[in-house]
Parts: sequence; C-alpha cells; structure tokens
Amino acid sequence: MGDFNQSVILEAIRRSDAGLSRIELVEATGLSAQTITNITRRLLDEGFIAEGGRTINGPGKPRVTLRLVAESRFSVGVHLDPAVITFVLLDMSGAVVHRRVVRTPDKDPRRIVETVAQTIDLLIDEAGVERGLVSGIGVAAPGPLDAEKGTVIDPPKLHGWHRVPLRSVLAEATGFEVTLEKDTTAAAVGELWTSKTMTEGSFLFIYLGTGLGASVVREGGVIAGSSHNFGEIGHIIVDPDGPRCLCGMRGCVEVVCTPQAIVEQAEAAGVFEDDREASDERAVDARFTQLCERAAAGEAPALGVLRRAAGHVTVLIAALTNVLDVDRVVLGGPFWGRLAAVYLEEIPAPLHRLSATRAVRALPVEGTVVGDDVGAVGAACVVLDAVLTPRASDLYLED
Amino acid sequence: MGDFNQSVILEAIRRSDAGLSRIELVEATGLSAQTITNITRRLLDEGFIAEGGRTINGPGKPRVTLRLVAESRFSVGVHLDPAVITFVLLDMSGAVVHRRVVRTPDKDPRRIVETVAQTIDLLIDEAGVERGLVSGIGVAAPGPLDAEKGTVIDPPKLHGWHRVPLRSVLAEATGFEVTLEKDTTAAAVGELWTSKTMTEGSFLFIYLGTGLGASVVREGGVIAGSSHNFGEIGHIIVDPDGPRCLCGMRGCVEVVCTPQAIVEQAEAAGVFEDDREASDERAVDARFTQLCERAAAGEAPALGVLRRAAGHVTVLIAALTNVLDVDRVVLGGPFWGRLAAVYLEEIPAPLHRLSATRAVRALPVEGTVVGDDVGAVGAACVVLDAVLTPRASDLYLED
Repeated sequence: MGDFNQSVILEAIRRSDAGLSRIELVEATGLSAQTITNITRRLLDEGFIAEGGRTINGPGKPRVTLRLVAESRFSVGVHLDPAVITFVLLDMSGAVVHRRVVRTPDKDPRRIVETVAQTIDLLIDEAGVERGLVSGIGVAAPGPLDAEKGTVIDPPKLHGWHRVPLRSVLAEATGFEVTLEKDTTAAAVGELWTSKTMTEGSFLFIYLGTGLGASVVREGGVIAGSSHNFGEIGHIIVDPDGPRCLCGMRGCVEVVCTPQAIVEQAEAAGVFEDDREASDERAVDARFTQLCERAAAGEAPALGVLRRAAGHVTVLIAALTNVLDVDRVVLGGPFWGRLAAVYLEEIPAPLHRLSATRAVRALPVEGTVVGDDVGAVGAACVVLDAVLTPRASDLYLED
Repeated sequence: MGDFNQSVILEAIRRSDAGLSRIELVEATGLSAQTITNITRRLLDEGFIAEGGRTINGPGKPRVTLRLVAESRFSVGVHLDPAVITFVLLDMSGAVVHRRVVRTPDKDPRRIVETVAQTIDLLIDEAGVERGLVSGIGVAAPGPLDAEKGTVIDPPKLHGWHRVPLRSVLAEATGFEVTLEKDTTAAAVGELWTSKTMTEGSFLFIYLGTGLGASVVREGGVIAGSSHNFGEIGHIIVDPDGPRCLCGMRGCVEVVCTPQAIVEQAEAAGVFEDDREASDERAVDARFTQLCERAAAGEAPALGVLRRAAGHVTVLIAALTNVLDVDRVVLGGPFWGRLAAVYLEEIPAPLHRLSATRAVRALPVEGTVVGDDVGAVGAACVVLDAVLTPRASDLYLED
C-alpha cells in the first residue's frame, strides 16, 4: 500500500500549481495526517519534493508548502515515425527540457537504432542533465506491437521492420531501460499527463499521423488493450463509395482518411497543377501542408477536399463514440495542427446528429493540448507515469 | 475497506464448487487469517454463508468448509423485448429458480408496466419465495438509455416509449428497488456471472437480438460506458454494397445484420415461396426460425443467406476487436441459438485474417454459456452483482 499512497501524494503535488501543505494533502487524498507525514518525509529525503514557502492562515502554526522538484528525475521520449524521429527530454513536471528532430535515415532498422541511440546521448548531453537522473526511455512506434517481445510487427510504412526486437536492441545500445508503446496510446498518455483538467470523465483520442489510431482514457488511465494494441481503426469503413482497400473492402479509413489518401483526393480534384515528384512520406507531407494552406486561403477546391475528409472522420468518430460511450473527443497527432481549423468547424454538428446518446448529452470535440510532438512527449510520460501514477494493481488489500 | 473485503470473500466462496475453508480463503484472497475470521463470522450471522462438512488433511484441526447459502437472497430479472418479455427469479448462486415469458402486450407503456408488475408478483408467489429476501429487480431494455433519469429513449422497436421513466414507475408499481441496464450490457454481466472461467482476460460480447449490440468485459467487470450506453453498433458499415440506411450511409449493421434484414435477404433470394403476412417482430421471428431450419437441412439458398450474414458479422467483429483489443469473442442473445452452427463455422477463419494482432495471438470465438434468456438472467445478475462483487471504487485508501 505504501507505494500506492506515495504515488497518490506525488501526483496530487504535481497537479497542484503552487504546491500543497500537509493539511491540504490530507484533504486532497483522504489519507491520515500520520501517513502524509511519513510519506512526505521519504519523498523529501529522495529529493522528489522540497519545502517551499510558509503561509499563515489565521491562528496556529504556519503551513509549509510542499512542491515537486521538477529536476529530480527526467525521461526521454522517442517517436519513431516513417518520415521523422522526434526526441524530447522531459522533467518530472512534464515540461519539455530539450528537443531534437532527425529525418528517419533510411528504412534499415540497424541504422535507425544507431541514430536513435546517438541522438539520445546528444539530447541528454546538450541539456546538461546527469545520466543517473534519467529514469528511462519511452519509445512510441506505429502498431501493431508484440508487447511481450518488445517488437514492432511489420508496420505498413516501415518496411524491413518485421519483428525487430526494438526494446532490447535499444536498451543494449543506450544502457537505459526502454518502454515500447503504440504511438496512439502514448499520445493519449501525453494528453492525460499534460492536461490539468483531464483526470475527470472519459475521452476518445483520435491520433492523426501517417496512419490514424484511437485511444481511450477512462477513470484517469489510458486503456492499452489486452495485447497493448488498442485502437487499430484502419479498416473501419467510412465511405461506401470509397476506393478499394487491400483488406477486400471499400472505403476503409486507411484508403480514405490518411494524409496520403487526402493528398490523392486533392490531386484527383485538380488542386495541384503539377505532378508529384515522389510518392514518399516527405513529398506527401509537403503536399498536405500546401493543401491546408490553400484551404485556409479560401481556395474552394482545396477546402472542398478537406471538408469531405472531415465528413469521413465524422463517420469514424461516430462509430467509435457510439461503441465506446465516452464524455468527449480529443483530436491530435502530427497532422492535427494543419487540420484543426476545418475539422473543428465541420465535425461537431454532424457528429451530434449521428450520436446514439444525442438525447442524453452533448459530445464536445476538442483539439490536443500537447501539440505536434504528442507522440514523443507521451512516450516520455509513459516512463514518468511508471514512477508517479497510482494504480489499483499496486494495491494490497488488507483490513 | 470492510465491504470490499466482504465481497471479495463472498465472491471467492460463490465461485468455488464445493465451498472453501478459512485457510483456503486466506490463500485465495491474500487477506489475513484474522480478517477472514471476522468477516466470515459476519457473513454467517447474516445467513449468506453456512458451515458445511469438516475435512481432515493430515495432522492439526479439521477444516470447516464454508459454502454459499443460495437461498439467502434472490433477485428478479426482466428482459423487455419488442416481441416477448422474459422474467427470471435467480438465487444467490446465479441459478434460475423460476421463469415466465409473456408476449409484449401492445406498445402502450402503461399496459406493459402493468403486465410487468403483475408478472413479477406471480413469479415470486409461484416460486414460494419470501418477498423480503428479494434484493431488487433488474430490467434489461433496448438502448440508448438515460441512466440518470432511469428512462429508455425512443428505442427503435418500441414506439411510444419516448422518455418513459421506467425505473421509477416500475419501482412504484412493485415496491422493489429497480435497476435499469441496457440489454447488451446486462447480457455480458450474465455471461460473466454464470461462467466459472470468465474472470480472467477480456472478451467482446456480441448480442444478437432484435437489434445487435456489443459489450466488453475487462478485468472481471463489464464496461458500461460513461452514460451506460456502451456498445451502440447499429451504424457501423459492414457492407459497402448494402442497402441505404436512415442514417444516410449504406450497409450499416442495422440494415444488414439484424434478423429482420436477414429475413428480407432470404425473401429476396427466394428462400420462401409465399409472401409474409405481417411485418411485425413475431412474423420475422417465425421466418427466421424457418430460414435457420432450412439451412440446417442443407438447403443451399438458405445456407447461402446465413453464410453471407456471417461474413457481414465477421466484418463487424473485426472492426470491434481491432479497436478494443480483447482476448476473445463471445456471441449470445435470443437469436444466437439458431445461428450458432453456421456462425461458429464461418466466422473464425476470416476473422483471423482481418485481425490486426494475428501475428501475436489467436482470437477464439465462442458461443454464450447462458442461453437465450441471457438478457433477463443478466438483469437479475446486475442486482446480485451490487450485493456481491468487489469494486475498486468501494476502496478506502489508508496505510
């Protein structure tokens, strides 16, 4: 029970803006004054928290504020994407201390692992952080994963990655403990961790990356699924008139809602005058940016393409929220920033019409609070999460 | 913490076939001998458990077996379906003590409530059970529900039910406490409760009734969703070439996979020679039975219709399992018995091919252990569940 209560206390202090006194901790956690005293002493000894100022509220002893020592521990988050690899160093408060982005070298797993290991060293060195204070490395990778073996399984956009034992190879190359998580799940952890208000109620997180994914937060925790592969949504049908998919169906998310599919729709609609030179992820990314800029400038064909894309994503979100019965929807991921204006305009009203619970409640749709680095930030939060967050599974039941 | 530990102990005794001794309870629950002694004394006093035989295992004091007193408490389950209303009286062991089925009178809510209240009285009287031992009434109804107000919201097949305050009206008419739950959620509770092996791992329950629904069991509990409306799957698209749906799309579950849709497909395929006389639920039910009997007799057109239906359900299950990442799939509900042979033959292999985690694990597909009454049995289990099952939310954290 001790570890559980310790993380409850640490989490309460972390989420408070100005720190909490011991009395306030008693109120916030329901734990006894004696328990609070014992555990905060331990946390002070270990350097996780420090005593701040004293406040006087009426008669009695002044209260000593306890606050989190942000620089007491750090973690590294790595987001492995087919186009770029993003690295962040987070401190215990969840703030990004340092950041690096490198182009994904080529698709050879050995070269990628080498690059990742070198960049992590560089990241820690440049930030001037002692290696002993880094709790570990979180890697966010495209699913599906083999969580037990710590491998990524043949991700569609990372050829040659069939069963690469990423976790163990990277642990050996860096000397750190490595945690592997799906990019979409990591993103939801990042969202949950960074937001001060998100601990109540449930939400569906829609991850808009090279592929699309979903995750769900319920009762303050991200649902990882029984094999850590929650949220594979690529073959949900959103457009019965859409193009054929490799799975044998038509109009799946994978061939309708991805940045590549949207760029192809824009090309078919004549948004671009010239032919695309290459078909790799960077060319798609550049075209996608152009498309969004033209839509923002009011060009009707570009705007039309994005509005239709928003319509397809609405069908997807309706299918998911009707199954999952959550309180709200959060959109994020590396492509979100460019889509936010059109999607936040187009999705809410038709989503409400398609909601099975429209008679009972509204279904708010919001953008991420984390930004484009949500995958890497989330991966680093997965590591901090293991240090901080209380879990019912840590409980030991006794009268 | 006392109530939580009490339900842990009661649940362990309930799930054991022959009862458990106090020493075995210490092993099974991880609680201290002192705690076990205190709580079992309380449970003996309240009549929930009784002392059974003594067993001698080697030297030392003989062990006294503690077993559940099945007739210590009862509950009533009511499954409100557009065609029939099913009533069951369950004892504390989850066994059906008595059962009644009545035709749903007409669609006037007042007449239905009257019939339900009278039949509950009759059910309890006929079983010769003391009213004071009935813990409450569980009602399973088609979703969506307004869980806070205890109303069903305009269910598609129960016209005139817009915002009927079912829970309070029925509580007043019967004098019992009434719990309202979605039929699909109740069915999963019944499945979980009745099966001795289901407490480990997660499963997706597909409910095949007048409509289709889904529920998920994870870590020994059914996910009800934030508004108690988890699992609305009627508008997931499973056939891009399917008929138009009222929602504006094509090929939704609602117009492809329901018994009514399958009967219409059979009619279009010329399975039946004569025209259907009526289009109400009972006529559909009778035709559906005929269709399944002809398929079982080897008539190719009938079998073809059911095989195509199985294909559509496979697309649905693949979409859901890829999102939800569960360990296995259980099919059940009032139409399951007739479909089991064809569906269990047709679904597993293509489902495996569509599974995002096929490289990591198999995805077993099983039929319900409860039978056609799963909705009513589940509704009664929801009531017993509140008496018995441990919940993390009952925990009070203290060192």
